[in-house]
Amino acid sequence: MRAFLVLETAALFDVAQLSAIRVAASVEMLHAYSLVHDDLPAMDDDDLRRGRPTAHRAFDEATAILAGDALLTRAFELLAEPETHNDPQVRCDLVMALGQASGASGMAGGQMIDMVSEGMVLDLAEISRLQAMKTGGLIQYSAKAGAILGNARHSDREALAAYGADLGTAFQIADDLLDAEGTAEEIGKTAGKDAAAGKATMVSILGMERARMLAGELSSRAIVHLKSFDDRAVNLRALADFVVSRRS
Amino acid sequence: MRAFLVLETAALFDVAQLSAIRVAASVEMLHAYSLVHDDLPAMDDDDLRRGRPTAHRAFDEATAILAGDALLTRAFELLAEPETHNDPQVRCDLVMALGQASGASGMAGGQMIDMVSEGMVLDLAEISRLQAMKTGGLIQYSAKAGAILGNARHSDREALAAYGADLGTAFQIADDLLDAEGTAEEIGKTAGKDAAAGKATMVSILGMERARMLAGELSSRAIVHLKSFDDRAVNLRALADFVVSRRS
Repeated sequence: MRAFLVLETAALFDVAQLSAIRVAASVEMLHAYSLVHDDLPAMDDDDLRRGRPTAHRAFDEATAILAGDALLTRAFELLAEPETHNDPQVRCDLVMALGQASGASGMAGGQMIDMVSEGMVLDLAEISRLQAMKTGGLIQYSAKAGAILGNARHSDREALAAYGADLGTAFQIADDLLDAEGTAEEIGKTAGKDAAAGKATMVSILGMERARMLAGELSSRAIVHLKSFDDRAVNLRALADFVVSRRS
Repeated sequence: MRAFLVLETAALFDVAQLSAIRVAASVEMLHAYSLVHDDLPAMDDDDLRRGRPTAHRAFDEATAILAGDALLTRAFELLAEPETHNDPQVRCDLVMALGQASGASGMAGGQMIDMVSEGMVLDLAEISRLQAMKTGGLIQYSAKAGAILGNARHSDREALAAYGADLGTAFQIADDLLDAEGTAEEIGKTAGKDAAAGKATMVSILGMERARMLAGELSSRAIVHLKSFDDRAVNLRALADFVVSRRS
């Protein structure tokens, strides 16, 4: 999904395909590193990911830690290389935006808060903020990346950032719903882990029905943010529909 | 040492102090992340670092993994920020150079080879290459960083890169010597670990006496590379002396 977002938002501004593909590859590397580290025994301790053994099960823990580190490093290096964009300011903007989305104030910080708050009672606002850090930030970054690459005007950047924020939250609620109701076979990872770990999610607080409604509303709102892009945003609209209707 | 190298090489080219300090902070973050991850139970499994409990002992493994991830991320983000240098091309060059020194072809890759080759018989050339990846690259990057920041001419960049390469190897041999002969109190980490793990080092292959001689030769050669900088390189020369004479 993250790569798709980069490619589709870049297409809105006629960004060269090589630039878009490199940024898409970079965000997938970043995302893959986060999955490999999150699955470690000391973290979420998961054996399955996308229906296959997690990295530390297929290899060993040291390999998983180092592979994650190398992917994270390569993601930033790739962005800074001249082939990514001819304007070095754009490359720096991408590095900064990715850093913000994934570092201590973003994904890594969110994962830390998630570990520390296990067993604690979080309210909806707290969970919402936690999810925005943990998963929302990278999705929002992916939606903004095309605008950064395309030197888009301010209003277009804001529209895509708003789209990305709503899409990210809708995606996370849908993910929590799948975890609550799905089977490992369907979702490609261990099911029911959140409930087993006593982790509060949007679903555990709102209940399945209201959570499903909220996800639908967020998906619709995400689509509204795309109105200035008319027909060119057809795939981005379809993605907003898809994240709340998917079964895996 | 890494921060010192950045500050001293930057001073050769009259780089603004804020720029030099930010790049020095970035490389120390990168180095700190590598220590925190290398000390993990799945990696070198160390309890002591700089005479104090390692991160996973003072806190827990998840915290150590995430703190390392966040430090790594912040190191790159910091370099890309406008305050680091007014020329975005210079910021991109720093991100790329740091990425090369620390990723799969550098530090992380070297650590992986080190784990995989434990118990294997490596010859001097193989160990030399492994050490250059594992520790030499980041030291060399630190020596080059001032030249990148200062838009130095090619010959000056090459001279500092050569200085950094020799300094890094000398440092590593000195480190291996300390590990072989030192006590935990002196070196601030568990002593004799390499021998206990059956790890080949320059010292185990050459013996203490020849290893000490080689370190001295490399230190002298490092100093020769600095000749075009005359008096301004006095601290860089002193560092080359220090790395082979230090007791901790």
